[in-house]
Amino acid sequence: MKLLSLVAIAALSTFSFASGLASEAKKAGLKPIPQSQSEILKLVDDSNNPITDAKIELGKKLYFDPRLSKSSLISCNTCHNLGAGGADGVSAAIGHKWTANPHHLNSPTVYNSVLNAVQFWDGRSPHLEDQAQGPIQAGPEMAAPKELVVQRVTSIPAYVDEFKGAYGDNVKITFEKIADTIAVFERTLITPSRFDDFMNGKDDALTKAEKEGLKTFMDKGCTTCHNDIGIGGTMQPFQIANKYKFAKTGDFKGDANGMVKAPTLRNIEETAPYFHNGKIWSLQEAIKEMGSVQLGITINDKDAASIETFLKSLTGEKPQIIYPILPPSTNSTPKPDAM
Amino acid sequence: MKLLSLVAIAALSTFSFASGLASEAKKAGLKPIPQSQSEILKLVDDSNNPITDAKIELGKKLYFDPRLSKSSLISCNTCHNLGAGGADGVSAAIGHKWTANPHHLNSPTVYNSVLNAVQFWDGRSPHLEDQAQGPIQAGPEMAAPKELVVQRVTSIPAYVDEFKGAYGDNVKITFEKIADTIAVFERTLITPSRFDDFMNGKDDALTKAEKEGLKTFMDKGCTTCHNDIGIGGTMQPFQIANKYKFAKTGDFKGDANGMVKAPTLRNIEETAPYFHNGKIWSLQEAIKEMGSVQLGITINDKDAASIETFLKSLTGEKPQIIYPILPPSTNSTPKPDAM
Repeated sequence: MKLLSLVAIAALSTFSFASGLASEAKKAGLKPIPQSQSEILKLVDDSNNPITDAKIELGKKLYFDPRLSKSSLISCNTCHNLGAGGADGVSAAIGHKWTANPHHLNSPTVYNSVLNAVQFWDGRSPHLEDQAQGPIQAGPEMAAPKELVVQRVTSIPAYVDEFKGAYGDNVKITFEKIADTIAVFERTLITPSRFDDFMNGKDDALTKAEKEGLKTFMDKGCTTCHNDIGIGGTMQPFQIANKYKFAKTGDFKGDANGMVKAPTLRNIEETAPYFHNGKIWSLQEAIKEMGSVQLGITINDKDAASIETFLKSLTGEKPQIIYPILPPSTNSTPKPDAM
Repeated sequence: MKLLSLVAIAALSTFSFASGLASEAKKAGLKPIPQSQSEILKLVDDSNNPITDAKIELGKKLYFDPRLSKSSLISCNTCHNLGAGGADGVSAAIGHKWTANPHHLNSPTVYNSVLNAVQFWDGRSPHLEDQAQGPIQAGPEMAAPKELVVQRVTSIPAYVDEFKGAYGDNVKITFEKIADTIAVFERTLITPSRFDDFMNGKDDALTKAEKEGLKTFMDKGCTTCHNDIGIGGTMQPFQIANKYKFAKTGDFKGDANGMVKAPTLRNIEETAPYFHNGKIWSLQEAIKEMGSVQLGITINDKDAASIETFLKSLTGEKPQIIYPILPPSTNSTPKPDAM
């Protein structure tokens, strides 16, 4: 009887601690990706551009199609590689004619980007439908004028048919409609992790070390900026842009108020190098730097390692992507222009 | 009774014609991809580097991994895009630092490349295991020294584990072993088409127009070079290299004897532009040019259109590729070097 009681108490106490930690995390502003597909759909859908299977499938093709770039060599997936954490793994994005981003900005991950409150490092875009229009046109990225993109897509009968299937026979295939369709695909790129299981009530989804890391993450104040379902994704006052400006890594100053989008920490293990300028490669070093520059504290090696352990529990399950077979160009498809 | 007989005779006569055409095609040297998976495996396997599921899966990851390039931006799939007919859709391949192929050579398709008798336009490589070593190292392509590739791969524990799973715990991960593994994946990229169904006995797999096109294709002499299972893939005397040399499209002269590999015509609809220098974009124009330069005949518009109709029946079913999630780099992974 006595033994049984002790076990019961121990179990209860573990439960309380866990439940306590999850509820503490919720108080600190952290929220999980919901468990059910229907709840996730509700979270990521937009009534202005509702998600349908036909749009997802077409959007996936367009996302992977390099013919959306002037050269026909660069697709959305080139810099936001779905096999590589949704990013490109280099400091500054490199695009058309091997041009580095002129502000030395690092490509953010496309995974969970729908959870961001705003898009781009300076938050200038309100949603993915708008954001997707930027890199396609930007000179140092895909460098394609709107008209060229529309001409390429409409010259390919299979694409025209798919647009009709997705939006009805009277669809007008505009540049904006193309971007909208890519955005629908991107909205589906959600990666639930063990952290979400934990927050949704599965106490043993995190190891003891990861739970300790979560506690350290909160105790140090990281949740000030990295919170909500995205664990980041909102505009925050950012000191590092000023610091790094002097390190000759670009002239990026954030938005008009010097605010910068705190990146999501989901899949952070897969998306080195870190910061807007991709200048730090080690996750522990990045954690310490954030403590120093943003929080004005010193995070020691042990705590940085502990936080890193927690952050790795944010590596999520990626949606399975069947690599799309793109419809062939025709004689009327505008030719690649790589020069 | 009379009607029945007529129908029977008509059916018989169709059958004879069809059977006659397939057998004529076989006499002309055309051979189908076999029907059964086991026969296909026998066709593409190599006892020196036998195909296994573990090697295919690892080879697929390596094929899609841009970290095999110096910049970490270019993968095998960049120029041999499995969504775009296994090629890149530009005239001359463009690689590291946006460098065009110095001989203005066009990227050949990777689909069915195992069926080629030799690899590269000048046939200098005997098989895919050897071929795969070339572009990874070539300065204008992926530009990665052997040692760098090995360092990148061995710095990633998940890759080391997969190599052990594929080759045993004592595997030595060399550059050659990496190329071997990529080649195994490539060996599986076979695309059976309606033409193969036809040649394997399914008479109605081709339309009447496609059968007529096949007949024209043979009558004009195209099967002189484009034959066997690959419908191409062997070294042939090639006049066009000389002709195009004067058009300032590179200095390519073929092998020591001026021979050039006749490309496979499988999926040709998806792999414009055409010829070793990618100078012709229209398939009908390419057909006429080949008649003129290679066969010394004029192929009129009607016959060129008919041959094109047949060639489109060679567009095959692609193996379904689940886009691989690549294992993350570590602090010891050599950094990208884009400059």
